[in-house]
Amino acid sequence: MPIKSKKNIFYAQSGGVTPVINATAKGIYDEFKKHRKFFGRLLVGKNGIAGALNEEIIDIEKESEKEIEKLIHTPGGAFGSCRIKLKDPRNDLQEFNKILEVFRKYNIGYFLYNGGGDSQDTTLKLSKFFKKNKIDIKCIGIPKTIDNDLPETYACPGFGTVAKYIATSTLEASLDVSSMSNSSTKVFILEVMGRHAGWLAASSGVVKGKNNNSPQIILFPERKFDKKAFLKKTKESVECDGFCVIVVSEGIKNENGDFISSSSTKDSFGHAHLGGVAPILANMVNASLSYKVHWAVADYLQRASRHIGSKADVQQAYDVGVQSVKFLITGISDVMVTVEKRRKDGSWSTGKIPLGKVANREKKLPSNFIGRDGFSITNACSKYIQSLINGESFPPYINGIPNYSKLKLKTIKKLK
Amino acid sequence: MPIKSKKNIFYAQSGGVTPVINATAKGIYDEFKKHRKFFGRLLVGKNGIAGALNEEIIDIEKESEKEIEKLIHTPGGAFGSCRIKLKDPRNDLQEFNKILEVFRKYNIGYFLYNGGGDSQDTTLKLSKFFKKNKIDIKCIGIPKTIDNDLPETYACPGFGTVAKYIATSTLEASLDVSSMSNSSTKVFILEVMGRHAGWLAASSGVVKGKNNNSPQIILFPERKFDKKAFLKKTKESVECDGFCVIVVSEGIKNENGDFISSSSTKDSFGHAHLGGVAPILANMVNASLSYKVHWAVADYLQRASRHIGSKADVQQAYDVGVQSVKFLITGISDVMVTVEKRRKDGSWSTGKIPLGKVANREKKLPSNFIGRDGFSITNACSKYIQSLINGESFPPYINGIPNYSKLKLKTIKKLK
Repeated sequence: MPIKSKKNIFYAQSGGVTPVINATAKGIYDEFKKHRKFFGRLLVGKNGIAGALNEEIIDIEKESEKEIEKLIHTPGGAFGSCRIKLKDPRNDLQEFNKILEVFRKYNIGYFLYNGGGDSQDTTLKLSKFFKKNKIDIKCIGIPKTIDNDLPETYACPGFGTVAKYIATSTLEASLDVSSMSNSSTKVFILEVMGRHAGWLAASSGVVKGKNNNSPQIILFPERKFDKKAFLKKTKESVECDGFCVIVVSEGIKNENGDFISSSSTKDSFGHAHLGGVAPILANMVNASLSYKVHWAVADYLQRASRHIGSKADVQQAYDVGVQSVKFLITGISDVMVTVEKRRKDGSWSTGKIPLGKVANREKKLPSNFIGRDGFSITNACSKYIQSLINGESFPPYINGIPNYSKLKLKTIKKLK
Repeated sequence: MPIKSKKNIFYAQSGGVTPVINATAKGIYDEFKKHRKFFGRLLVGKNGIAGALNEEIIDIEKESEKEIEKLIHTPGGAFGSCRIKLKDPRNDLQEFNKILEVFRKYNIGYFLYNGGGDSQDTTLKLSKFFKKNKIDIKCIGIPKTIDNDLPETYACPGFGTVAKYIATSTLEASLDVSSMSNSSTKVFILEVMGRHAGWLAASSGVVKGKNNNSPQIILFPERKFDKKAFLKKTKESVECDGFCVIVVSEGIKNENGDFISSSSTKDSFGHAHLGGVAPILANMVNASLSYKVHWAVADYLQRASRHIGSKADVQQAYDVGVQSVKFLITGISDVMVTVEKRRKDGSWSTGKIPLGKVANREKKLPSNFIGRDGFSITNACSKYIQSLINGESFPPYINGIPNYSKLKLKTIKKLK
């Protein structure tokens, strides 16, 4: 079919990737295939919005059906992602004009952008720009972030799987340290992602009481780090339980509001690039209490942990993809797809929210989700996280290794 | 049955635990149950040999059958482990006499000790002590170590599962960094365990070519760290593949033989306690090449990673447990059970080796397993590791979390 015959979809993946963002791409693809008469092609930007800026565009139907099938269980961003924040259009329209030029050339009528808070800002800016210039390109934001910090949605696809990974890893490591604690390691510290919101650290709390009293301490970015209280609780835990498991958000701050982590490089969104608070706490505990300490930093291992996929999460990721295409068909624009609260029969539904209500906003852990001691989660929080880690969605294995999708990612020849 | 009527077994878990050491305990238990007429009780030392030294002994049949069943899929050391190295009996017999006193009191005729190289040394010392004093206590060592560094056995139970975890995690993280590399992170560094032997780092090499060229660099403790060559290879990899995944053994050393990792505390065996080489390399890469770098330290997450159990590994762990009891019945003593090369039909067999040949010896990666560039593994190595990560053995889940065993660990009342 000639590229100009019907309006095409432009889809792209943006921001830090997740273990299930490709399940969203699969949902979009499946729904697109159901409506071949409505749309032209499903074009995908290589490396997020950079694909439009650089005119590097993939025609998904040129990929093998077999590899597309595997997207449902493949982590990372299969089409490449980006950390690009568009300039303020009041000051600089160059990027907007370039995107419009490319979208016109490729007959784009629909823009689907899959990302977190910063990426919803990109979608919002573009939707406003198109409107202002009376260009009919429907814009839909699709949520994705392991941080679970997008507002106005019950959850963010990606969070459930990483929460399941962190909860399981915390439980497993607690069984390790508890067996060693009599004559060796007494404290284990796990650093997890979360710059400003403690959802991931909180997810470790669901295993408390399952096999032991771990995690005895959770450190949230929503609470100022209090060294004295922290060391006191660590000591008490070792004395009471024989060992102490600590789960810490990378983004915890001291009373001056500075990150405890010493690293101070920044990413292109201007966020401090963190990592490394675990060894700082380890040294603190060892120096003050003389306990032998082990520590782990999960970093990308958590963000790519598709091998322990949450069924609820994979379903949500797929569903928001499907819903985004449904919205396009019904003429809806300028919204982000949301995950709605679980139905009584256990299934999930989707909804929508205006982009302006989600862009650049962060949903932190509500106060009633953090225990009074500041080191634990409440039952309400546990119940919420539990709803998102339920069920297992494992990838298929070949020769002992998950069989993940490998796309060709061949860009289409640039149009004149 | 009175404790004195028949000779009892004393079993204990020692050293750094593994995701499958409890499968060995289950093998022992199952085989013990088949031969109830031959043995008295199956007694287990709480916290390894400390259970004998402190007379803290668990009667396994007092635990619920349901929780014992779960040992097959539970990580950590369910009965507690220890890092206790017995003193040289030529200088100090106090510990030996104490153990003998307790073993006599509890009518122990069989000693099964489950551990790595240091623990085999404990078994060897005790077996020599018993012989010298003409005490009829059969001593069998059972292998266990994620480091895979015991000699004279095809593999060490625990290694296969952790190798599978590291291979999978490397593949998953490579998909993450490859999707980010266009405008953000270009280098990902994963630190894995391995003080002196690079088996775990090597295990990442089996995913090379599966979805991409990762890991581009593996750093082995068997090779001196060459900063210049390392940075050159990192730069070339980023230029060629767009990104670079580095898997590093905690124990890599510089040309003077000093650990690159800065930590210098030691464990009770006198080994330096390591961890933290990943952030050192990350800073090195960032300072020299200006790439954005992410890094992870797997630490206990790898050592307790039962959720991604290797079927081959779980089978081996169970089998060495079963075999140890069979050896006792046939009167064999002073040997360590070994894992033998896989049969053509895919099944594994077990064997034995005198304790003196394994105690305090470390099996490093052979030269023909490390690629010529010093940053990769050979086909022979890949084939070997592949044989140990095959098949999946997942634990059952309840409410989204693995359902692990929870023993009471109630010690029996001290005998007078």
